[in-house]
Amino acid sequence: MKNLGYYNGKYGEADEMTVPMNDRVCYFGDGVYDATYSRNYKIYALDEHIDRLYRSAALLQIEIAQTKEEMRNILNEMVKKMDTGENFVYWQVTRGTGKRNHLFPTDGSKGNLWINISPKDIVDIHKQLKLITMEDTRFFHCNIKTLNLIPSVMASQKAKEMACDETVFHRSGRVTECAHSNVHIIKDGVFRTAPLDNLILPGTARAHLITACHKLGIAVSEEPFSVAEMMAADEVIVSSAGSLCLQAVEIDGKPVGQKAPEILKPLQDEVLRVFMEETN
Amino acid sequence: MKNLGYYNGKYGEADEMTVPMNDRVCYFGDGVYDATYSRNYKIYALDEHIDRLYRSAALLQIEIAQTKEEMRNILNEMVKKMDTGENFVYWQVTRGTGKRNHLFPTDGSKGNLWINISPKDIVDIHKQLKLITMEDTRFFHCNIKTLNLIPSVMASQKAKEMACDETVFHRSGRVTECAHSNVHIIKDGVFRTAPLDNLILPGTARAHLITACHKLGIAVSEEPFSVAEMMAADEVIVSSAGSLCLQAVEIDGKPVGQKAPEILKPLQDEVLRVFMEETN
Repeated sequence: MKNLGYYNGKYGEADEMTVPMNDRVCYFGDGVYDATYSRNYKIYALDEHIDRLYRSAALLQIEIAQTKEEMRNILNEMVKKMDTGENFVYWQVTRGTGKRNHLFPTDGSKGNLWINISPKDIVDIHKQLKLITMEDTRFFHCNIKTLNLIPSVMASQKAKEMACDETVFHRSGRVTECAHSNVHIIKDGVFRTAPLDNLILPGTARAHLITACHKLGIAVSEEPFSVAEMMAADEVIVSSAGSLCLQAVEIDGKPVGQKAPEILKPLQDEVLRVFMEETN
Repeated sequence: MKNLGYYNGKYGEADEMTVPMNDRVCYFGDGVYDATYSRNYKIYALDEHIDRLYRSAALLQIEIAQTKEEMRNILNEMVKKMDTGENFVYWQVTRGTGKRNHLFPTDGSKGNLWINISPKDIVDIHKQLKLITMEDTRFFHCNIKTLNLIPSVMASQKAKEMACDETVFHRSGRVTECAHSNVHIIKDGVFRTAPLDNLILPGTARAHLITACHKLGIAVSEEPFSVAEMMAADEVIVSSAGSLCLQAVEIDGKPVGQKAPEILKPLQDEVLRVFMEETN
């Protein structure tokens, strides 16, 4: 397969696949998703991502038809059908199918399972990013990885139009996260990242960075920080399942960070080492 | 047709129709919609709803492939295929089709047009509603009629579980709107409705109610009001394209309104008269 699409047991090339018009995602974006990468046909941190998907679904009372083990087996089976071992592995569960109605389906049906797998090279961890900032106008459920993503679409497009890579959201100056990544800073030797509340996604890469900090003896603070603190930070770091730990060097056209490579570099080495070992 | 589904020129029974897996609605809920009712195969206030759809699309930079006249003609043609003349007429435009990517498609393609039409009786305008209240945790783009509707789904389901009909959202006590309706109050002879900003949808029924107030000599205030003011109002009114003007009689288990039938009744008569005349 070049780009694999899967829907409730059927699969094929994604751009040839169709789905029922009455899947609730089509009217309400009513579903949750998760995504990670594969290397050598091994899906990185799969259990963590499956656990998060189930947590997202539970918060929205979406019932998943599969057990976690069944989902793991399906994903592992599907990735093996790809032409290459290096892929973006994406899957989602939507809240069933039926005539448009805000109310949950009452026919006892469970969620629909979708998978999309497409070739993607492992990120160059030494890539440097340019960012923009934008007021965070999203809903107050950003801890749930939902398919209600219009604000992230708009913010990503805006970054591209400004010749940048990502958008940092803030709520009246308090940094939350990026359009499709978490964001962190290093200041005076401390790794600072927003706390896990309803304003940010509990990123798997964020968790791996905190684990790496503990291993390397880097202090971690999970207290909110401001845009001003970010602009004055020693390093600004963007992380996601795919990017792991990237250095930002410019925000809103102004140079930022690049003052603590002695902390950033070992962090990058450590999270990349874990990724490479687990997918070896 | 019993329940008509339409997608980019193809149509059939909605529950048999399929759509491309890579329509952007499937990954991002990336689209806008509008909806109204038909009677005698005549679609009520169609131009207003089409105008609003184009405004929603423009705010998200979604390009619509049809002119307004073409869209009007397609909708009028499709409603005639229904078995009955009384229908819920729903349509949406999604931001194209392509491999999952937050960024807008760059292939020059325009939006996908979807239609769903299903039989629906005209509402009983004398139906009385029970409501619940809930903190408004939605995004700050509620003036745009998007397909990012999970909070409205959750709020509607919560109302049902409380044996109620709708949920009134408020932001720290300031009433915004309902999960899929606008809400208004009458107090001391004044029709009060939240102002048109990014916190509420500019409802067509809301506009019709204001027009009716002007005709009937009822004063109108478009200033924010609070949950406390709503609970103490002379009447609480819920409006949508389908409900027109319904009286709420209970909120969070407490009786409300029902103190100004001499204002409510003529308002209901007037908006129903306009609806019946236009669809005669």
